[in-house]
Amino acid sequence: MLTKNKNLINDLKKQLSKENVLTTLEERYAYSQDASNLKDIKNIADAVVFVENIEQIQNVVKIANKYKIPIICRGAGTNVVGACTTEHGGIILNFSKMNKILEINPENMTARVQPGLILGDLQKEVEKFGLFYPPDPSNLKVSTIGGSIAQSSGGAKSFKYGTTKDYILSLTVVMANGEILQTGSNTIKNATGYNLSTLFVGSEGTLGIITEAVLKLIPKPEARAVMMSYFDTVESAIKAVNTIIDNRIYPATIDFMDKNAICTVEKFYPANLLTDKECALVIEVDGFKNSIEYQRKIIVNILESSGSSAIQYSTNDEEYEKIWMARRSSMGACTKLRPNVTTDDVIVPRENLAKLVKGIQNICEKYNLITCLVGHVGDGSVHPQIPIDYEDKVEYENYKLAKNEIYQLTASLDGILSGEHGVGYAKKDYINMVINPTALDYMRKIKKTFDPDNILNPYKIF
Amino acid sequence: MLTKNKNLINDLKKQLSKENVLTTLEERYAYSQDASNLKDIKNIADAVVFVENIEQIQNVVKIANKYKIPIICRGAGTNVVGACTTEHGGIILNFSKMNKILEINPENMTARVQPGLILGDLQKEVEKFGLFYPPDPSNLKVSTIGGSIAQSSGGAKSFKYGTTKDYILSLTVVMANGEILQTGSNTIKNATGYNLSTLFVGSEGTLGIITEAVLKLIPKPEARAVMMSYFDTVESAIKAVNTIIDNRIYPATIDFMDKNAICTVEKFYPANLLTDKECALVIEVDGFKNSIEYQRKIIVNILESSGSSAIQYSTNDEEYEKIWMARRSSMGACTKLRPNVTTDDVIVPRENLAKLVKGIQNICEKYNLITCLVGHVGDGSVHPQIPIDYEDKVEYENYKLAKNEIYQLTASLDGILSGEHGVGYAKKDYINMVINPTALDYMRKIKKTFDPDNILNPYKIF
Repeated sequence: MLTKNKNLINDLKKQLSKENVLTTLEERYAYSQDASNLKDIKNIADAVVFVENIEQIQNVVKIANKYKIPIICRGAGTNVVGACTTEHGGIILNFSKMNKILEINPENMTARVQPGLILGDLQKEVEKFGLFYPPDPSNLKVSTIGGSIAQSSGGAKSFKYGTTKDYILSLTVVMANGEILQTGSNTIKNATGYNLSTLFVGSEGTLGIITEAVLKLIPKPEARAVMMSYFDTVESAIKAVNTIIDNRIYPATIDFMDKNAICTVEKFYPANLLTDKECALVIEVDGFKNSIEYQRKIIVNILESSGSSAIQYSTNDEEYEKIWMARRSSMGACTKLRPNVTTDDVIVPRENLAKLVKGIQNICEKYNLITCLVGHVGDGSVHPQIPIDYEDKVEYENYKLAKNEIYQLTASLDGILSGEHGVGYAKKDYINMVINPTALDYMRKIKKTFDPDNILNPYKIF
Repeated sequence: MLTKNKNLINDLKKQLSKENVLTTLEERYAYSQDASNLKDIKNIADAVVFVENIEQIQNVVKIANKYKIPIICRGAGTNVVGACTTEHGGIILNFSKMNKILEINPENMTARVQPGLILGDLQKEVEKFGLFYPPDPSNLKVSTIGGSIAQSSGGAKSFKYGTTKDYILSLTVVMANGEILQTGSNTIKNATGYNLSTLFVGSEGTLGIITEAVLKLIPKPEARAVMMSYFDTVESAIKAVNTIIDNRIYPATIDFMDKNAICTVEKFYPANLLTDKECALVIEVDGFKNSIEYQRKIIVNILESSGSSAIQYSTNDEEYEKIWMARRSSMGACTKLRPNVTTDDVIVPRENLAKLVKGIQNICEKYNLITCLVGHVGDGSVHPQIPIDYEDKVEYENYKLAKNEIYQLTASLDGILSGEHGVGYAKKDYINMVINPTALDYMRKIKKTFDPDNILNPYKIF
């Protein structure tokens, strides 16, 4: 170990208790990747630290400044874009010990939370008060609120309820120089000065270290139901979606699975899915109990007249979970096809969605890659899941070529590279395909203003 | 006229057509104030220009840089915080000729608009497609989308539908150096780089000149109804609100009028309001037709068991407008009491709202000022409307003292100085009461980064 690193570790151990600093090769290696499982991360963390309060975080920042070494914040590491990778080494700042709900205030409809809090735990707790925190990445049981703020997470309910940025009222942030910044307010509206809260949402740990958040909650809808509906063409499915919205129905979710996704799920997690159909929509409606049946009738009529066959419909919680399980199992099922599986997150205006779906299918076919497409039709968002073998050089090269073409296609369809996963390390080289040079320039200027020495998760996003 | 100004005017006339540059004293004076009608604006505009396209704006920016003179953007000038005042002179950049809807795209549920577009016109047009743009400042028929982006407007429906920031997908911005910046994307979700769109929302023209916006639209609820309900105490009204939300009803609006507001409206615009009650709630519900009666029944039950008397309820559009007219007439009615009327915009977490309302009433009583309180209970937001005579020195001094105490009270109740009007010139000296020095420091750093020569609406906000 280099002397510099020895001193770094000593300093960290002095400030944090010994068990909160991991230094063995295995430990540092384990925390140097995230769920992106990127192939080309060349370096590992210098140390992994667990923090328990804001003072400890300030001390870690001081040490990072002393050694001019990166700090990479980490929740559960479930992001899929390499937002927590350590290609330049650095200190992994692990939030798993700062995972508490500090307050749920039903009258203000707010929750004050620590960044390491598991999203599913938050949702369960606020629901006890009849309240609802809508952002809902599929990996609810693992992913953290800090990670979802960093990556601007969305999830299945974004169509009706928006994404994380719509639910952040206030953040406590430790800045690169150790100062504590308080953004926003504890009120549900705020027009007092620049909107710093939203600047941090989606900034992937590059502008500051979020140590606490006040979240906006809303009343939980009384009832919900989900239906699954099959189509012979992607166009007819999207046409049905447009007609539903024209009828002033606002579903919580309008999700999508293509044929490969349906077949792969059915193969490994049999659920009586119809494997001869081109695609399926998963539509969730919510609201007052008496509105569910009303919405169902209108939607079923539309689906039928749009050529859908075999509409499945949940009438209780068990059936609800079963349909959702099928939609959510896609990534898991893909992992059974090849040693590795990649997922992505491209999004276009909905009028271009059919072209995007078909284009991705064609690109993957051209490069001899399997692809399971799932996504959020309402949002125009597609997650191509591509199972591959990283060790198969030809396949990996093909994957990289396909990825590049998918981004080019997305850009040509007026889309953007990420709707809800972020950019991280995985997509940074492509960001100039969709963001104009002036905007990138101002993003870089903001980064420089907030973190002049490039300490905080450097070389991510751009 | 100074030579510098002569040259400035000549340059402006050269770049814009002659009729698009106003230079007489009367014209310059007329555009140097806004609806804030502040007493202490010491200077007037050097010129007022009407722009018709982005190139002209870039040319005005060049000229402003040449003469190191401020640019103050102006929509309809309806803001009430002095966001468009000219206490340091400068060029008023008037957007009333850039007032078009460039596109409504029903499939993408977006509208692309110019900043001078009147909000009410936008709402009417999108409603033809069954779509809805919720931000709804009371002066819908006059105020512009550009102004509402600049001031981060909210309005009566913010409780359920959020504020302007929740509906901005993308902005085209001319920067202080004349560069064109494109923020965001045309997609309804975006996690690709820093969230620059929201940084501009509420920045009051200090960071860039917004020349175009892409707005998110949502399906328009099928039906709506409004009710008005009177209470003998503010506490019982707020308790009723909490119970409604506990019952998982999510009204579009929960507005509020205090006794003075009720009596003043009734005096000048008789509408059979009950003038012996302490306050009234104005509650609007929306959703599917069959849910309106359902919500009404639950709410009426709650209102009655919370001690409300005389609940009025709209059963058609005419009755709907009548109730809203009463709520919206408050400011107009106040202008009949004294030569001037001021309004304000303070907001606290809802649990502190009763204390804020009573505190403001006490402060105004102490300083011998009339005050009509209206506001958005759901949001915890209060607009104290104080009719005064600016020429009455004692009254004006009392008003300034009362204002200061109202802000101190708001800060002590964990509130913030503006929920939806902005800070402008009127409140800049108070902003440090509620925003911590580090946050202010970073706001100033952002301003410096975006506008190093302080050309864009300088000396506003902070």
